[in-house]
Amino acid sequence: MTYCVGIKTAQGLVLAADTRTNAGIDNISVYRKLHTLCDDEDRLIFVASAGSLSVTQAMLALLNEGLPPADEADLPRRVSGCGTMFRVAQLVGEAVATARRAVGQTLADTNINARISILLGGRIGHGALSLYLIYNEGNFIECQQDAPFLQIGETKYGKPILDRALEWTTPLEEAMKVALLSFDATIRSNLSVGMPLDLVAIPTDATRSPIRLRLEPDDPYFEALSREWGRLLNDARAEIPDPPFMIVSDAAS
Amino acid sequence: MTYCVGIKTAQGLVLAADTRTNAGIDNISVYRKLHTLCDDEDRLIFVASAGSLSVTQAMLALLNEGLPPADEADLPRRVSGCGTMFRVAQLVGEAVATARRAVGQTLADTNINARISILLGGRIGHGALSLYLIYNEGNFIECQQDAPFLQIGETKYGKPILDRALEWTTPLEEAMKVALLSFDATIRSNLSVGMPLDLVAIPTDATRSPIRLRLEPDDPYFEALSREWGRLLNDARAEIPDPPFMIVSDAAS
Repeated sequence: MTYCVGIKTAQGLVLAADTRTNAGIDNISVYRKLHTLCDDEDRLIFVASAGSLSVTQAMLALLNEGLPPADEADLPRRVSGCGTMFRVAQLVGEAVATARRAVGQTLADTNINARISILLGGRIGHGALSLYLIYNEGNFIECQQDAPFLQIGETKYGKPILDRALEWTTPLEEAMKVALLSFDATIRSNLSVGMPLDLVAIPTDATRSPIRLRLEPDDPYFEALSREWGRLLNDARAEIPDPPFMIVSDAAS
Repeated sequence: MTYCVGIKTAQGLVLAADTRTNAGIDNISVYRKLHTLCDDEDRLIFVASAGSLSVTQAMLALLNEGLPPADEADLPRRVSGCGTMFRVAQLVGEAVATARRAVGQTLADTNINARISILLGGRIGHGALSLYLIYNEGNFIECQQDAPFLQIGETKYGKPILDRALEWTTPLEEAMKVALLSFDATIRSNLSVGMPLDLVAIPTDATRSPIRLRLEPDDPYFEALSREWGRLLNDARAEIPDPPFMIVSDAAS
């Protein structure tokens, strides 16, 4: 399995993905799931993927080669040629659907799951930051202010902290911290999600530098965050009074 | 959907279930999912169920009527006649499998899901408290000291808090509090789980009274727990330092 989260707030965009893949529990590997589609002066565009590794790789290869043009005389269609993030989402959606059909045919006689889902985030030039969730069929939704995050993969363990903590006005540093707390909860409760983590953060303010990094299993900040969060949760739990119905019953017994 | 959790620690046993059922999102009702099989001087035995309501009701009716005896001259087999909690788990497992087969046949031509799962908890006489998870096929596992809880239904949202907070030595009041925090996380993140909640707590110490109660949506303790927990989590999050890689990047930009 996999866990990826994308957050878009007023101050910027965060994309984060784990790196654990497994084909059976005795075949566990580290594979990058956060991929760079464009990273230059003109455009910053990243995708995070969950699901079939072979479909994901086929999709990335298609995007790299370019999808066939409508007219043979034209050039292949690439992310670098799209004028808006919406057009990029359409192109990635088309690549997802094409890759899934191709790999799906080879798996038709098996029970092997060839589904994938994608988070797509970034900006073109000085345009607005955009975050999309692209489904297995190639259709997609865009992240909006009222619910400033999207998740794919093993989403449930890490959702309560996102539901509580994220708003449109959440600062970018806080959004990154919340993303890491969401990963901490997921990694503790589910063996199929694991370190290292790949992270991208793009500030809305284009004069601030984007961040791309990998957090290794021994990363001192993530280790401290995980340890401190556990301690703070224990302290918080101790501050909640015991249920009164338990105490009443004791007195009555 | 449904969420039920069972906790067994040195001090006792907690069973908790929500009450929301739905047949499509426009058909939502309140149904009790925490059922009493025996509640008298001799035995305290409860089940919580997740999954098909019709299979659950058929299973409860079977247990109430008694399952057919091996020899026609004998009496029907009932929970009240079982000598150990293990025998009760076997009988409930048989009722689950029988009910599922009967209802499953009537649903054979449809895509309607007739699966259920059961938490079974309680004690016979002054015997040890036992907690079982009974699967759809009727087989079961017993809760052990190393992992002192079992869940059924919509389990993932509420698992991180259980993973962090529960140990064999956790006091019974604390175990109940943690169960309610697990429900709070689940109810906030998933519309298919809702109030009221049904609760049972059985202290290991048989001189302490067992507790059976329903928490209504306006229960003052649960309301305060939910509100305070939200505030404490916000405070805890504020205590975690911002990620250093975000700050370094700001300075460098």
